[in-house]
Amino acid sequence: MTTARLEAFSDGVLAVAITLLSLSLAVSGPGHGPLIHQISDRWPSFAAYTVSFFVIGIIWVNHHSLFGNLIRVDRTLLFLNLVLLLFVVLIPFATATMATYLTASGSDSHVAAALYGAVLEGMSLSFGAVFFWVMGHDHLRDPASPEVPRTAILRFGLGSAFYLAAIALAFVSAALTLLVTAIIAVYYIFEHTPGGDPSD
Amino acid sequence: MTTARLEAFSDGVLAVAITLLSLSLAVSGPGHGPLIHQISDRWPSFAAYTVSFFVIGIIWVNHHSLFGNLIRVDRTLLFLNLVLLLFVVLIPFATATMATYLTASGSDSHVAAALYGAVLEGMSLSFGAVFFWVMGHDHLRDPASPEVPRTAILRFGLGSAFYLAAIALAFVSAALTLLVTAIIAVYYIFEHTPGGDPSD
Amino acid sequence: MTTARLEAFSDGVLAVAITLLSLSLAVSGPGHGPLIHQISDRWPSFAAYTVSFFVIGIIWVNHHSLFGNLIRVDRTLLFLNLVLLLFVVLIPFATATMATYLTASGSDSHVAAALYGAVLEGMSLSFGAVFFWVMGHDHLRDPASPEVPRTAILRFGLGSAFYLAAIALAFVSAALTLLVTAIIAVYYIFEHTPGGDPSD
Amino acid sequence: MTTARLEAFSDGVLAVAITLLSLSLAVSGPGHGPLIHQISDRWPSFAAYTVSFFVIGIIWVNHHSLFGNLIRVDRTLLFLNLVLLLFVVLIPFATATMATYLTASGSDSHVAAALYGAVLEGMSLSFGAVFFWVMGHDHLRDPASPEVPRTAILRFGLGSAFYLAAIALAFVSAALTLLVTAIIAVYYIFEHTPGGDPSD
Repeated sequence: MTTARLEAFSDGVLAVAITLLSLSLAVSGPGHGPLIHQISDRWPSFAAYTVSFFVIGIIWVNHHSLFGNLIRVDRTLLFLNLVLLLFVVLIPFATATMATYLTASGSDSHVAAALYGAVLEGMSLSFGAVFFWVMGHDHLRDPASPEVPRTAILRFGLGSAFYLAAIALAFVSAALTLLVTAIIAVYYIFEHTPGGDPSD
Repeated sequence: MTTARLEAFSDGVLAVAITLLSLSLAVSGPGHGPLIHQISDRWPSFAAYTVSFFVIGIIWVNHHSLFGNLIRVDRTLLFLNLVLLLFVVLIPFATATMATYLTASGSDSHVAAALYGAVLEGMSLSFGAVFFWVMGHDHLRDPASPEVPRTAILRFGLGSAFYLAAIALAFVSAALTLLVTAIIAVYYIFEHTPGGDPSD
Repeated sequence: MTTARLEAFSDGVLAVAITLLSLSLAVSGPGHGPLIHQISDRWPSFAAYTVSFFVIGIIWVNHHSLFGNLIRVDRTLLFLNLVLLLFVVLIPFATATMATYLTASGSDSHVAAALYGAVLEGMSLSFGAVFFWVMGHDHLRDPASPEVPRTAILRFGLGSAFYLAAIALAFVSAALTLLVTAIIAVYYIFEHTPGGDPSD
Repeated sequence: MTTARLEAFSDGVLAVAITLLSLSLAVSGPGHGPLIHQISDRWPSFAAYTVSFFVIGIIWVNHHSLFGNLIRVDRTLLFLNLVLLLFVVLIPFATATMATYLTASGSDSHVAAALYGAVLEGMSLSFGAVFFWVMGHDHLRDPASPEVPRTAILRFGLGSAFYLAAIALAFVSAALTLLVTAIIAVYYIFEHTPGGDPSD
């Protein structure tokens, strides 16, 4: 069993999820105030769209990187990957909910941001599970160098810790959660999953 | 005619269907009560999302497993596969309907759960039809061992019988249908379609 | 330029379009009468879903069949294929509109059914354009036998004529349009595009 | 790292985005006036659908053309491509917004058309960035001939300048923006990205 179809299915889910992010941008239409205000009032939707677009894009880049170096797929990996995708598919929902409530008063904005952080934490932990299963079971074409596991633990640990911080900060301010998520995205753009494709 | 494009199309449909499951999670937005209540009141949606996500995920894993071992595709198989996909595409609709009505009073919850069970029964029977057509028409790269048909009849029969039971239980309690479906999903995670990829 | 990416893109569009058909099945939810009535009152949606699912499925099968035998793709073919996809993407919209208005009084049901027929006629004509472009420009791996063009003209002509009839019948009864479309689908299940994959 | 999965993911996003364009065509249903008026009143939606369908289709054709000639993908290219896709995914949203407001009075139609033009300008600039990164970093299988960069600068420059003009014209008339976009689409159908697949 090669990785081709696992990658094709994952690519499909990632592509649909990243595209569904745009559904939450829809304006209410005529009769709901000037369009320019409808758009400017919804800056949280545009900010959340951009951040989540890169979050899913980075998942794809790292998934690509890791699976391009795989030679063997087992049933456990298929299901760990499904758990990862289960969280990916929740991202458009969590993004839309956070964007809708970001400027809401009371506890709603905190709940919405914590939900967003929790979905990303779940995604991060399940990506870690996929990664360590692959590392620990000899599935790689080019064996990772000895320092890879150490670096990876550091990197995944850092990511997960930051998402935890994003959840905690949700109870201070929802906007902070979005900001921290954006910073994690920028971090992952420059620091990529080790053990992936060597040409990288 | 190789299986490549049949798999690509099926993967596409499965990936879109599994992602559309999340559309039913959308909350009503400000003005419909505290967000935390909106989310907790909709536990049926989250439970149904999780169960149906694994149901579709397992269909994909088993489809992958079976078609990875195919050498020949005929026109009948293309149409049997289309019937299977017709039921797969109904799963997000049936999931959303069941989740919406799970806690409704009167007969509505029973009807919604029976509909969900019926869609899964249709999916199970059409997957069985695909399987037995493939087995009976010499399409496999590695001929299945003699005991495969017996095991398969047992396994597909068991799955279909359980989905029938899920339909019957719908008239006792909609939640029971969801529970039985979850149990079938766990069963299929550990017991996979025989005759598939030998590396499995 | 091989056909691989043209097929991948077409498969993606076909897979998304076929899955979006299910969006029109969504029930209104609690407060809109017993669920069993909501479902039974919407029989046109279920009938239209089934017919359109097979219409798109058959497009995919015939597309697959034709492109599996291609060796060369030119820019004109890319754009003819885009026109075909433009009509395919209209099918979920036309299906939902027809289903919503099938039992409406006045001229609305006729308009909705004529719209459905017109979209299918456009799809049929553009598939014919793709076919004859391929035939006339030496793109095939296995040259079609001399009788293929004659058979093809007959078959495409018949399909297009029947869809024209479906449009005309829309002004008698919308249900007749749906019935004729179902009959054309059954016809195409048994009679496939000539000149395709020889193993077929 | 080959281009296969980058193309697969991009094809997926382009296929979903092009199909989501049709969501904005949905009519309001019975009780909102005769269907024939609902449809004729929404001519902007049908016009915008057609134009945007070809805009995305052309992006796909040119993307296909350029990436079919790539031998090497680096991390920067992955992220430049993500930025391109970020704008592509905004096209269905911008199309729906423009179509809804095209015939609105006051400044709303101008804002909506400027938004549409801005999304296409962003798409055009990021496609240019992808193109010049590829040209400047020796990623091509068949080195482009010396005149390619000059021609390309002219062509991309022309496209971006026309989209800028479309934004400016939005403040005269939203319909003009749509018209100019349609003209650019026709231009790109006949003039394709240089440096792509040589068989073209």
